[in-house]
Amino acid sequence: MALSECNGDLLRALDHIGNASNLTSFAMEEVTSYFCELDNRVNYVTTGTDTTFLLFSAYLVFVMQAGFCMYCAGSVKDSAQNTLNIIVMNVVDAAVSAIAYYLFGFALAYGEPSNGFIGKGNFAHHDFYATGQDGYAVNPFANHGIWIYEWASAAVVAGIASGSIAGRSQVTAYVACSAFLTGFVYPVISHWAWATYGWLNPYRTPQPFLKVGMADFGGSGAIHMTGGIAGFWGAWIEGPRRGRGEPRDVPQPMNGHSTAFVVLGTLLLWLGWYGFNPGSDFDIVPATDFPINVIVERAAVTTTLAGAAGGLTMLFVRRLNTREWEVEDMCSGVIGGLVAVSAGCGVIESWAAVLLGFLGAWVLIGMKMVAMAIRLDDPVESSQRHFGCGLLGLLFVAFFAKKEYAVHLYGDNFYGIVYGGSGRVLAAQAIGALCTVAWTSVTMAPFFFVLHQLGLLRMSAEEFMGRRLPRPLIFDN
Amino acid sequence: MALSECNGDLLRALDHIGNASNLTSFAMEEVTSYFCELDNRVNYVTTGTDTTFLLFSAYLVFVMQAGFCMYCAGSVKDSAQNTLNIIVMNVVDAAVSAIAYYLFGFALAYGEPSNGFIGKGNFAHHDFYATGQDGYAVNPFANHGIWIYEWASAAVVAGIASGSIAGRSQVTAYVACSAFLTGFVYPVISHWAWATYGWLNPYRTPQPFLKVGMADFGGSGAIHMTGGIAGFWGAWIEGPRRGRGEPRDVPQPMNGHSTAFVVLGTLLLWLGWYGFNPGSDFDIVPATDFPINVIVERAAVTTTLAGAAGGLTMLFVRRLNTREWEVEDMCSGVIGGLVAVSAGCGVIESWAAVLLGFLGAWVLIGMKMVAMAIRLDDPVESSQRHFGCGLLGLLFVAFFAKKEYAVHLYGDNFYGIVYGGSGRVLAAQAIGALCTVAWTSVTMAPFFFVLHQLGLLRMSAEEFMGRRLPRPLIFDN
Amino acid sequence: MALSECNGDLLRALDHIGNASNLTSFAMEEVTSYFCELDNRVNYVTTGTDTTFLLFSAYLVFVMQAGFCMYCAGSVKDSAQNTLNIIVMNVVDAAVSAIAYYLFGFALAYGEPSNGFIGKGNFAHHDFYATGQDGYAVNPFANHGIWIYEWASAAVVAGIASGSIAGRSQVTAYVACSAFLTGFVYPVISHWAWATYGWLNPYRTPQPFLKVGMADFGGSGAIHMTGGIAGFWGAWIEGPRRGRGEPRDVPQPMNGHSTAFVVLGTLLLWLGWYGFNPGSDFDIVPATDFPINVIVERAAVTTTLAGAAGGLTMLFVRRLNTREWEVEDMCSGVIGGLVAVSAGCGVIESWAAVLLGFLGAWVLIGMKMVAMAIRLDDPVESSQRHFGCGLLGLLFVAFFAKKEYAVHLYGDNFYGIVYGGSGRVLAAQAIGALCTVAWTSVTMAPFFFVLHQLGLLRMSAEEFMGRRLPRPLIFDN
Repeated sequence: MALSECNGDLLRALDHIGNASNLTSFAMEEVTSYFCELDNRVNYVTTGTDTTFLLFSAYLVFVMQAGFCMYCAGSVKDSAQNTLNIIVMNVVDAAVSAIAYYLFGFALAYGEPSNGFIGKGNFAHHDFYATGQDGYAVNPFANHGIWIYEWASAAVVAGIASGSIAGRSQVTAYVACSAFLTGFVYPVISHWAWATYGWLNPYRTPQPFLKVGMADFGGSGAIHMTGGIAGFWGAWIEGPRRGRGEPRDVPQPMNGHSTAFVVLGTLLLWLGWYGFNPGSDFDIVPATDFPINVIVERAAVTTTLAGAAGGLTMLFVRRLNTREWEVEDMCSGVIGGLVAVSAGCGVIESWAAVLLGFLGAWVLIGMKMVAMAIRLDDPVESSQRHFGCGLLGLLFVAFFAKKEYAVHLYGDNFYGIVYGGSGRVLAAQAIGALCTVAWTSVTMAPFFFVLHQLGLLRMSAEEFMGRRLPRPLIFDN
Repeated sequence: MALSECNGDLLRALDHIGNASNLTSFAMEEVTSYFCELDNRVNYVTTGTDTTFLLFSAYLVFVMQAGFCMYCAGSVKDSAQNTLNIIVMNVVDAAVSAIAYYLFGFALAYGEPSNGFIGKGNFAHHDFYATGQDGYAVNPFANHGIWIYEWASAAVVAGIASGSIAGRSQVTAYVACSAFLTGFVYPVISHWAWATYGWLNPYRTPQPFLKVGMADFGGSGAIHMTGGIAGFWGAWIEGPRRGRGEPRDVPQPMNGHSTAFVVLGTLLLWLGWYGFNPGSDFDIVPATDFPINVIVERAAVTTTLAGAAGGLTMLFVRRLNTREWEVEDMCSGVIGGLVAVSAGCGVIESWAAVLLGFLGAWVLIGMKMVAMAIRLDDPVESSQRHFGCGLLGLLFVAFFAKKEYAVHLYGDNFYGIVYGGSGRVLAAQAIGALCTVAWTSVTMAPFFFVLHQLGLLRMSAEEFMGRRLPRPLIFDN
Repeated sequence: MALSECNGDLLRALDHIGNASNLTSFAMEEVTSYFCELDNRVNYVTTGTDTTFLLFSAYLVFVMQAGFCMYCAGSVKDSAQNTLNIIVMNVVDAAVSAIAYYLFGFALAYGEPSNGFIGKGNFAHHDFYATGQDGYAVNPFANHGIWIYEWASAAVVAGIASGSIAGRSQVTAYVACSAFLTGFVYPVISHWAWATYGWLNPYRTPQPFLKVGMADFGGSGAIHMTGGIAGFWGAWIEGPRRGRGEPRDVPQPMNGHSTAFVVLGTLLLWLGWYGFNPGSDFDIVPATDFPINVIVERAAVTTTLAGAAGGLTMLFVRRLNTREWEVEDMCSGVIGGLVAVSAGCGVIESWAAVLLGFLGAWVLIGMKMVAMAIRLDDPVESSQRHFGCGLLGLLFVAFFAKKEYAVHLYGDNFYGIVYGGSGRVLAAQAIGALCTVAWTSVTMAPFFFVLHQLGLLRMSAEEFMGRRLPRPLIFDN
């Protein structure tokens, strides 16, 4: 409640008291100012608590960069001298995305003015924290706290796509891909899904798409499918690494240390997901009729259970199929479960999260087979996992969003088919997914194609083998 | 605004009101509803703050899985092709414990109804957040926030035990051990120590055990001793790794990278302990007569000092004994100090934490000698450290819990012998420790014995050397 | 207090008011006590929120130890058997600094009584939380929460210096250096900059230095320059590693894994900086006229942008100069940007942060050339980066502190020259920097010189090559 309202309410109330005979205006003012100060302090501490929650959630999302880095460094088996340099590009993703999201990304995603398709203001942090004449923020998204969270999420999209083209791409390609993805492609999709007037946003007024909108709380669609599709086009256009992409008869020996990196990376990603999913609403202080603290807690639990179920399913399926226990496959299953649960983490029950993780592992297995069939070489299974499990997650919500839970987030019309919900929910989720695929494809496929034609996508054999160029003038480390 | 000021202001203001007359009931209702809303908002923001603290503490506890993973991967020196796969099982611990704790563990630990020995309700998140007719929670533990924290703690128990059997156990053994530990053995002990009606809980009404109960704030006993004893039985029953367990004359060369992993693992564990110890009460917002924020801050400080003192003691003792500086031994000492301080972190003084870390290092040295004498091969010293230092920590509280501090947590009767406290405190701590050892032994020893007899515990030489099985049908990475 | 109770209490209380003319003292007391309790609860929850923010910020600062560890382990290219043991000393830094900061450091930095130069009380946590007769804290710094944060920052200073002497120093030297730096040298400087009566503190009453004081929000000067200068003297006095320090013609092959460590280390440092910079004010709950939440959010954003700009500048400059893409150089650039932005993170605009990162990279390049010219062998570029970029950051504030932002932190007189500010601001920043260099040099240079003369600084060739000493009596791992 803003200060002015507080004053108004209190003054009105005290006016009655004052009319009860001789209450002086001095007493009224004194009482009013005392309570308004208290009211204000409650607002302040609420802001402080929500900001703490938002920032630390954003920091956890940033941890995912370290997770992708380790996961990727551990997964890519080739070990030519120069390659690792090319693998661990997550610091490039983080840096490029920060600048791109600062200049363009945020404005296209959450800037005001905007329309249903794209944002058109607040470029380069312009007019952040601006307030209108009523004392309220002109654009409630335009503050640095939300920017940090949204940038960290954008960097995740870049991290997913980078994994797909790891091990044979030029640094130029990473830089360009990160900038284009986080500065343009992803922001548009996140605008659709989450910005005030985004056409897919379930909160859109006067009326959301198909009267329900698309529910994608943590971003199975807007983030993971986008990253996965982008990565697919990159990996597909530049082709497999040397020695990959044809059927192999001899399993290649693994680098001993890579498993430790993969597990560390997986655990860091899992950790980061606690910022990614439960942090998605930005707030933690509940209000009457909006128990956001319970939703956040639920999101943490469903995230945990889906990741665990995905990993264990993968571990046991692999064991049954090949008689081997394989930790790295399990790690991929964990991440698949986490991807799948992102969309619905706030509105599904615990058992449904376990089921979702289980299904996610099977989707991942299916996608692996598809990738093998079409000779797609994605060194970390990034495109198949984030696309496949992301799609699963988006559709799963349409079936398993519990009415009692979803009402708080998405209103009375939105709940799953299993609980008697409308088919319109499924339609909205499916159309949202389709449009995500379409938009990412029509932007990223030409982008990678042009890069490839310009010779900027794939490393030459020379670079790949690590031949050194003439001694630098100022650098020597 | 301090209490006295508040009093003065209000009294002055109400004095004016008091001189009025004829206050209408409409005015009274309006004023009342205004202030009730304010009261409610203070409740909401308190909930938000406590939830933020609880969740992020839980996430820090989860970081310990990454810590165990790196510590273990760095410590196990053997390097047969397949071994690393077997070492870095912490992602298995995390996943298995999530499912086991979801289905059974939480219910046995904190479910209602319950008796002094075990919980009997709330299986699979059933009736979480249920409230009674009075509007209060039926079981204040049964919410997802607490579940996340308690699951992460349970996974720590599994991580400790996994370290002890690292480097030669089958994946089946890890999976079964994690499930049994986190789904049954540890929950029972945590029920004793911390659940509303647990027989060792110092808060138990009408009367705690020996009128004082067992104080184990962060879990030196319930978590570390349990994990250590469980690991001991596993390591003891399956026997040493090949080439270990007999006296060695030639120190073996170390894998160069392992030290970096060990140090990283130690620092991550240290970090995780800030969730593990200061987070143990779940709350951070103080109340009159319960300055939990001060207790939390103290816990962070004593945790730091005990870990530091344990590490430095180990570093210097090793130096005096062997003329070598050995970082890995120091790391073990740091962890030993952290284990020891967990029980008393909220109620001991800073100097006592330093003393405790110092003693912890010596206990660890003693346990190392015992382990060598009995030819116990625990590749990461997990059982000796977590059992020995955990026991020390539990007993240390009985001597060094400061009256002024402990009164807030455990009431008037509970303080250390050094401060004039009763011998009953020591008796309760010792009996609690004894029962922890007994319960863990009668459950885990037969469990590992049966696994061993079934040929499911120890890897065969074939598996160990990394022979590959026939090519998989659907997996190829 | 539940809603119904609140209603009842208030209605009853107001009933008494309503029946006035004759308002009884009983009614007045009841109303007063109700609102005083509410007032108190707002204080409590504010304390809880600020404590949560402070502690988790401190934990993030602690993450920087893991970052330094990985960065250092990845950067030092020599790989003699024993060396890694000597590189990954960050756990030693953490432990030694904890004990030294407990005993002496905090007291010299923030203890009371104090004068402008040094603190003189609160040794070993003595009189922490002490309150005076007015109910207020005698020394508002003397609590465990702030201690944890300040210790973690002190450990960062030790971590910076340790990097400079990595790869050829004795453990004795690390231990002594950490203890002396965090127990004496750095505390004095932090007292100047941040303690209540510190002579450089812009908040000092009655009047700060040159009427403005030195603004160093996150510690570009007090922390990074101090660490950098200390490291410089260590590296300079003990001389280069064997085979370094003379011009090399043949670039040496890199250890394949080190790049992954360097990137992981950089990302962990970046993560830690979110505790280091935005956490520097300790609070997050705003007050009227002190929008600390906005300052914290701005600090997070400027930190991100400066690090990103520093890294990208380095990446592209290196590419232009040598036609190579070099991730490790980029990482150094990221850290350089982060160092530079620490001083002004709360008071500069977003575009200025990008500019600062860009300048930081060029300063780093300049410092690299200086280091090569004077044959300084700092294996991780610690001294050149933290000194050079720290100095840049301190001076940058004098030009680019925005009036509108700085007024909240430093009062009406403090804003940058670019915004029409006074030259006195620049003078204060420069003199502060000069005194930091002077104090660190007059303490650390003799310290390292004496260590060197006593043969305790540099490892012997024997130790370096990893010759093992006679078998230990009690240690065998």
